[in-house]
Amino acid sequence: MAAQAAGPTRALAGFIVAASAAGLPGWTLHEAKRTLINILGIAVSATRYEPAGILTAWVRRQGGNPAARVIGTDIRTGTFNAALANGYLAHLEDYDDTHLPTILHPSAPVWPAVLAAAEETGANGLDTLAAFALGAETACRVAMSVYPWHYDQGWHVTGTAGLFGAVAGAGRVHGLDAARMTHALGVGGTHASGVRELLGTHGKALHPGHAASTGLQAAELAAQGFTGPDDILGGRRGFWAILSAGGHSEEALLGGFGERWELGNNGLKPFANGIVSHPIQDGVIRLRNEHALKPGDVAAISLGVHPLVLELMNRPVVRTGLEGKFSFQHCAAAALVDGAGHDAQFTDAKAADPDISRIRDAVTGEVEESVAEDQARVRVHLADGRTLETFVEHAIGTPQNPMSDAALEAKFTDLATEVFPTDQAARLLDAAWNLDRAPDVTALMRLASAQGG
Amino acid sequence: MAAQAAGPTRALAGFIVAASAAGLPGWTLHEAKRTLINILGIAVSATRYEPAGILTAWVRRQGGNPAARVIGTDIRTGTFNAALANGYLAHLEDYDDTHLPTILHPSAPVWPAVLAAAEETGANGLDTLAAFALGAETACRVAMSVYPWHYDQGWHVTGTAGLFGAVAGAGRVHGLDAARMTHALGVGGTHASGVRELLGTHGKALHPGHAASTGLQAAELAAQGFTGPDDILGGRRGFWAILSAGGHSEEALLGGFGERWELGNNGLKPFANGIVSHPIQDGVIRLRNEHALKPGDVAAISLGVHPLVLELMNRPVVRTGLEGKFSFQHCAAAALVDGAGHDAQFTDAKAADPDISRIRDAVTGEVEESVAEDQARVRVHLADGRTLETFVEHAIGTPQNPMSDAALEAKFTDLATEVFPTDQAARLLDAAWNLDRAPDVTALMRLASAQGG
Repeated sequence: MAAQAAGPTRALAGFIVAASAAGLPGWTLHEAKRTLINILGIAVSATRYEPAGILTAWVRRQGGNPAARVIGTDIRTGTFNAALANGYLAHLEDYDDTHLPTILHPSAPVWPAVLAAAEETGANGLDTLAAFALGAETACRVAMSVYPWHYDQGWHVTGTAGLFGAVAGAGRVHGLDAARMTHALGVGGTHASGVRELLGTHGKALHPGHAASTGLQAAELAAQGFTGPDDILGGRRGFWAILSAGGHSEEALLGGFGERWELGNNGLKPFANGIVSHPIQDGVIRLRNEHALKPGDVAAISLGVHPLVLELMNRPVVRTGLEGKFSFQHCAAAALVDGAGHDAQFTDAKAADPDISRIRDAVTGEVEESVAEDQARVRVHLADGRTLETFVEHAIGTPQNPMSDAALEAKFTDLATEVFPTDQAARLLDAAWNLDRAPDVTALMRLASAQGG
Repeated sequence: MAAQAAGPTRALAGFIVAASAAGLPGWTLHEAKRTLINILGIAVSATRYEPAGILTAWVRRQGGNPAARVIGTDIRTGTFNAALANGYLAHLEDYDDTHLPTILHPSAPVWPAVLAAAEETGANGLDTLAAFALGAETACRVAMSVYPWHYDQGWHVTGTAGLFGAVAGAGRVHGLDAARMTHALGVGGTHASGVRELLGTHGKALHPGHAASTGLQAAELAAQGFTGPDDILGGRRGFWAILSAGGHSEEALLGGFGERWELGNNGLKPFANGIVSHPIQDGVIRLRNEHALKPGDVAAISLGVHPLVLELMNRPVVRTGLEGKFSFQHCAAAALVDGAGHDAQFTDAKAADPDISRIRDAVTGEVEESVAEDQARVRVHLADGRTLETFVEHAIGTPQNPMSDAALEAKFTDLATEVFPTDQAARLLDAAWNLDRAPDVTALMRLASAQGG
């Protein structure tokens, strides 16, 4: 192949720039909208947290031309810092989407770069969605090309591979040709970084923020003729050689590009706590909604679970919100009372909530040999003596049972209305679902900001 | 040691914050001034080049609050983008200082972070010089702690270790305590990056630009309470483990901190071309200046040289400025005519200059067995039949023969006056020499900008 003779980076760039927005499978555009709705809700909600406040105050202090908006705030600033802040907000709660084969989070590094570029250039909604789809595809494929060596070495793949995705997405919006896309991938990719030592600190969510802003910058510079290396991925002193010395796969990077789409392997997270109790919450919410249960209707909950649940999340006494995240009893009780498992269900106030506390004290779990990790048997014992039961075959959010659009809307609305008026959240949701028909992203981003329109 | 029990990053941070500006050896402050003068001249001159124009146009487009200045331009912007642009300009011509044990360039990543922080906070001149000295010390020691494994692996150490230096320097200006300095090193150090694949492209000088801006950002965030990991250097998933898997030395990082200063191993570059012809240029300029030689006085130049000169730089015919950089004949002729070897001596116009061309055609070189790499025997044959001769024991810019303050001033003036009026260049030089007595850096940075005061 001629393209590959010039190196894998040039071949990748060729695929990215050649794809036609109108030619993308409809389901990829729908999935792109779903990831957008997901991170919009998360980012709006994340503005309530202290480190988010420090970062957005920093962005305000830097200042900038009002080219792009910071989600959930009234900040309009330069594209670079808008992408930085949005990438940070999208990942801060660890509640964003996950590419299951690589545990890369594609939206947090890629969407902010694409949105800022689209706001500045006036790109239409369809091209914006396609740019995200191609950026996410690039991030996932770069991650797959170094899996598992790169992550095992200690890199946080959302920061590293995510940066290539941000370049690709922003470069699409800027209409780079293959040569300039190649240079942009090099100018950005040299700063692919973020180590796992940051997990558990305020700094972790800077990884996608850095990826989004630095990737966007590279695309903007290359659009003006700025040059980088010819082969950042395959070069002798490039990404594969240095950041994945254990191995790499060119086939994983390039094979079937445009035919297979990694957005199909990208999961949305239904609950803000550890994954092992997700099947419990799924089953409890199912019974709650089917039977319109109120807290007072419920006497106890008994669960048949996989052994990991008792190993990792057996915490009957919960004094703080954070402890609740590690208690299957709290997760089940909050799911029954609130019908959800967002960060709002893991506050100190919720830990002390009388309804949740009473039911939490009546939650029991027993290991059932036949129950798999993504399964649970849920029995709700009612005050009137009846017992309701359901078996969760595959928890919501797994590949076999992706979140429905309705469940995603509920998650979005729960999160967005922590900050925005209900009406604004509804209009923002509507704008996202209809983005493919929008002349540009201005209306969307206005609704995503604290000014609201 | 208690400090080391908490990890090497915490110990390093303790040293950085404990040093007293007034207690630093006087020669380190003088050396700090010299590095400042050196990069100010280089950065001013670098604004003339195309990629510098692309980058500064990008900074203009981002916009920002006028907290800090971009050297050689009229741009005032946020601290982050000012540091980015200044780091880029300082390194673009490959003419900045070099820490000889590690080939790290300390000034380009560290000075821009320190200057932007000082401009914003109003730090006085002495504290600013001390902050640079401690930032440069940090950069050099982080580089030494991973030498040679890290560079051999393919990292561009000016981008990676340089970022730690930028954090340290900016963190000093912001008065971080040891705990916050530790967090700042972690929040910044996670993005330590830059691979050698970028050498020879516009992107290479982004490495110190990225280091300066991202390091400064980390210090600014930590000053507001933003947290990072406790041990970015020594942690299980930290810098040493991931970016220097081949080995590392805690002793090289911490041993004798505050007693030995790496600024003593930091060289300034006298000529903009490859190092092997530096002794030739040194000798030619020495004879030219001692005897006030004019081009018309000179009939020929004959040289006794190390074999590498003929191997790497034997190019009697020179048609372009770039070819001149790889021609000892051109280097010698331009040194005789102009008394210098800056980029201004390697333009297409200089390649075609009648005086330089005539003398270049009369330059010959022969290997002398006894001549070392940093030596040269230089004979200038005059039109009146006399021959002047000198032997260069150690070329200027080597540890045994550092550039004198007078030679540095000449280099600065040559470079700065490519863009600035002579009077402004002289006043800027004066402000830099007197920085330790300045109440703040405002006057210096005004003179360093295109507005000039």
